[in-house]
Amino acid sequence: MRTVREATLDLLRARGMTTLFGNPGSTELPMLGELPEDFRYVLGLHEAVAVGMADGYAQATGRPALVNLHTAPGLGNGMGAICNAQANHSPVVVTAGQQYRSLMTLQANLTNRDATRMPHPLVKWSWEPPCAQDVPHALARAVHTAGLAPRGPVFVSIPMDDWYAEVRTEEEVRHQTTRTVSGATVADPATVRELARRLVEAERPALVAGPDVDAAGGWEAAVRLAERARLPVYATPATGGGRLGFPEDHPLFQAVLPPAVAPLAEALAGHDFVLAVGTAVFPYYPNIPGPLLAPGTSLTALTSDPDEAARAPMGDAVVADVGLTLAALAEAVQAALEGAAASTREAERPGGLEGGGEGGRAWREDPPVRAAPEAVPLTDPMSPSTAVRTLAEAFPPEGIVVLESPSATPALRNQLRLGRPGSYYFSAGGGLGFGMPAAIGVQLACPERPVVCVVGEGSAQYAIQSFWTAAAYRVPVTYLVLRNEEYAILKLFSMMEEVSGAPGLDLPALETAAVAAGYGVHTCRADDPEQLGVELRRALASPEPELIETRVAPGMALA
Amino acid sequence: MRTVREATLDLLRARGMTTLFGNPGSTELPMLGELPEDFRYVLGLHEAVAVGMADGYAQATGRPALVNLHTAPGLGNGMGAICNAQANHSPVVVTAGQQYRSLMTLQANLTNRDATRMPHPLVKWSWEPPCAQDVPHALARAVHTAGLAPRGPVFVSIPMDDWYAEVRTEEEVRHQTTRTVSGATVADPATVRELARRLVEAERPALVAGPDVDAAGGWEAAVRLAERARLPVYATPATGGGRLGFPEDHPLFQAVLPPAVAPLAEALAGHDFVLAVGTAVFPYYPNIPGPLLAPGTSLTALTSDPDEAARAPMGDAVVADVGLTLAALAEAVQAALEGAAASTREAERPGGLEGGGEGGRAWREDPPVRAAPEAVPLTDPMSPSTAVRTLAEAFPPEGIVVLESPSATPALRNQLRLGRPGSYYFSAGGGLGFGMPAAIGVQLACPERPVVCVVGEGSAQYAIQSFWTAAAYRVPVTYLVLRNEEYAILKLFSMMEEVSGAPGLDLPALETAAVAAGYGVHTCRADDPEQLGVELRRALASPEPELIETRVAPGMALA
Repeated sequence: MRTVREATLDLLRARGMTTLFGNPGSTELPMLGELPEDFRYVLGLHEAVAVGMADGYAQATGRPALVNLHTAPGLGNGMGAICNAQANHSPVVVTAGQQYRSLMTLQANLTNRDATRMPHPLVKWSWEPPCAQDVPHALARAVHTAGLAPRGPVFVSIPMDDWYAEVRTEEEVRHQTTRTVSGATVADPATVRELARRLVEAERPALVAGPDVDAAGGWEAAVRLAERARLPVYATPATGGGRLGFPEDHPLFQAVLPPAVAPLAEALAGHDFVLAVGTAVFPYYPNIPGPLLAPGTSLTALTSDPDEAARAPMGDAVVADVGLTLAALAEAVQAALEGAAASTREAERPGGLEGGGEGGRAWREDPPVRAAPEAVPLTDPMSPSTAVRTLAEAFPPEGIVVLESPSATPALRNQLRLGRPGSYYFSAGGGLGFGMPAAIGVQLACPERPVVCVVGEGSAQYAIQSFWTAAAYRVPVTYLVLRNEEYAILKLFSMMEEVSGAPGLDLPALETAAVAAGYGVHTCRADDPEQLGVELRRALASPEPELIETRVAPGMALA
Repeated sequence: MRTVREATLDLLRARGMTTLFGNPGSTELPMLGELPEDFRYVLGLHEAVAVGMADGYAQATGRPALVNLHTAPGLGNGMGAICNAQANHSPVVVTAGQQYRSLMTLQANLTNRDATRMPHPLVKWSWEPPCAQDVPHALARAVHTAGLAPRGPVFVSIPMDDWYAEVRTEEEVRHQTTRTVSGATVADPATVRELARRLVEAERPALVAGPDVDAAGGWEAAVRLAERARLPVYATPATGGGRLGFPEDHPLFQAVLPPAVAPLAEALAGHDFVLAVGTAVFPYYPNIPGPLLAPGTSLTALTSDPDEAARAPMGDAVVADVGLTLAALAEAVQAALEGAAASTREAERPGGLEGGGEGGRAWREDPPVRAAPEAVPLTDPMSPSTAVRTLAEAFPPEGIVVLESPSATPALRNQLRLGRPGSYYFSAGGGLGFGMPAAIGVQLACPERPVVCVVGEGSAQYAIQSFWTAAAYRVPVTYLVLRNEEYAILKLFSMMEEVSGAPGLDLPALETAAVAAGYGVHTCRADDPEQLGVELRRALASPEPELIETRVAPGMALA
């Protein structure tokens, strides 16, 4: 009979989960010994790095990814990153070792004394198998649960003496290993037809695209829907936009919505019907109270997350797979337009809805095309806008940005205008420590696409040890560190909150490039745009991780 | 009427908590703005650093210390360090910001969506005040709870709009601010007398001293008790010895107990009665099964932690303040000896118990005096034992060691033999990331005592950003980094668990000195003992943080 460990490795193989991320301790050694050659173990020197890499890898592959942490304190160190994975709807399967079963009740050192409760509010499911033979099934359940909507992290605690126990029966294991669970559902056809009707009949409808469009593989369907219904498209506020939901270089794309209540309602005030897809409604951040929607605006949200649907403060919601339902909606809009055109032709009435197919004449005005990003005045140090504009000029079409520079986020979204799916990753919950390791996970998942991690020197500190993994595993991420010597976003918030004199908002003498060099990453400084462009092109072509530190002006960059 | 914030600052002043540790986010700004000049804010660039500093500061001052974290992801990043504080019985008051109350139900970005549950298994009390006016009272309750036995971390989540609300009544605030709670209790006199009788009448009794002896201020009482009853003294296993419970240079001190079940029982097998004080029974670690105690040994534990008392797998337990009860026990032993001597004199029988006062003749043989640490053969690279022996030679009597080098821990305890209270801090739960920041907290609490942080280059990574705080605040900790290019303790465990070929146990090219230099710490290398001694003496006298990196041989050092 096989061991629990052999059965588990087979399960992971069957689910395509042969890349393991981790930071090991003694309680994990029985799992890790003689890891078969078809498995790849990626070491992070801190749990936040291990979980962050798994998060990026899971998002970029679209499949659950496994991260293995040390018992109690190791799991504790990973909690911030698990919090990020939850906000990102990222199917991260977190496992942690646990003491020998015989040493848990007396709480020997390194017993995870309340293992399943520890990560509780952050995970969809938390379990410690009551006996060794249940480990493979627990992991199968964890993988399925993580991957079902709403995707998110799960946790399994595994006592260290379980791995070499024999499985109960081979038949049981065969079922665990081979069964599939399919959870994607399209919304009720009547609901889809009704939404299509509203999109067609509204005077000035709009689409708001959120991160789960990309995650659900709904990118093309979103474009199809927007083009057919001639919808102006907004991105959900950047604060919650962990991924892009729509090509930001598309003529229909209008803007990233502002993140506070009053300005957001104002930005949508010109629209009588808003369809918000794959996003919370909304990831508000600064507190600028006001109406949730202008009086003439109504809103429907389409989300695969029941909690997002339930907690929204206004609007209707439809819970279903975002990609499938967008595709159905695009078809229903097409059908509605053809039906309307046919009845118009039959009635020979002029002035009705005319056409709607891709070759048809416009029945609805196209929205205005957004202006190209303005040139930014050159200053010394350069504005973050200049830095990201220089990045945009050097950026290859297949490039990917992993972003964790709160004060440069609006400028990057404006200047870069990414146009392909799977090109942008951001910590949707606002937590720091995601970008540095997620960039490694994304790069491992997409070895053929150049990955640029744009990070502030303050943000970089929350998972600074990522540099070691990038160097040790030769993961060719380009780190662009925007050095402003402050927590710029906090100074902005201080102004908004009318708070002055708060300590701890300046970051003098924080030499991120020197630290990265200590971890073995090749680094350079580039303090003028021309030099920055040269260095970025060089780094993007390098087969090694590279860091470019650029001194930028303090404060937020919006343009 | 004062604001909630003013009342809170008054409360903190009244409790002597004017040093605040933190890593700020937007949700903390209203608390931090215009912080009065009698407050000191110590910034950590990562939450593990902020919590770890507070842990060290709380332990070294003996008073609750406040650490202020960012909402959900910030609290998440601090969870590993909170786990350490729990194991350390450290009264850390953790606060975190929270979204505006009006934005929580819709779960705006950075809402801590299940704030009180998040740190739950790690804290003694977790609370989010239901209204702004309750914030000062909640913090008062948190401070009292953290400081009562068993000491440990507590958590309060504070919505960011609460700080500028007005308090309900000044009278309420006055009570909150001024009331004291005293929780130290001495065990029932009958129990104390019975324990004293057993210590006097046993043939070969022994004392096991644990970390809470020092924490409870019981150091002198433990010495008094051991000397009066002529008890050989053992330290609880190093795995759970967050502090020393007895001077390790005292003639009665025998050894640090081994941490596994069978060897520990064997080490105590020569004793018929063991009194274990201020420790879990026991912080076992590697799984070496066997009898919990030898057939002739009985054990009683004295602990202030009801959970330690309840979960012990053998022996009786007495729950009471360790320091007060040790003092009472020393007196009761004295009384028992005097009573026995008096009745012996009265009966004029020779051969009975003779004397027991400090001037009396020994009625019980003193235990053998432990041999001085052996010289360690000089190798290249040097053994960790040589490194810590060199440290011992340079070590000033008032020095403090904060230790996080698992593979050098036994050697350090053997070579250094610290003899003063408050001289040793270690992560009792086995979690990493404690030592680097705790050394800063301890140094801030004890500015007149030199602090040396002995850390492995692997351990250093769990709170590496501590170097920035040490440099920015000019905290003169001496960091001694033992560089062995591996997770040595995991290789030891691999052998014990008969696991081979585990990935991720080597740490090549990890240039901790270069990283520390990047953070602004002056660094040097010292690869031979003579040079190491010179650099240690220089660093110990330096008014700035200093780092010495020493290449050491791989593997555990026991001698």
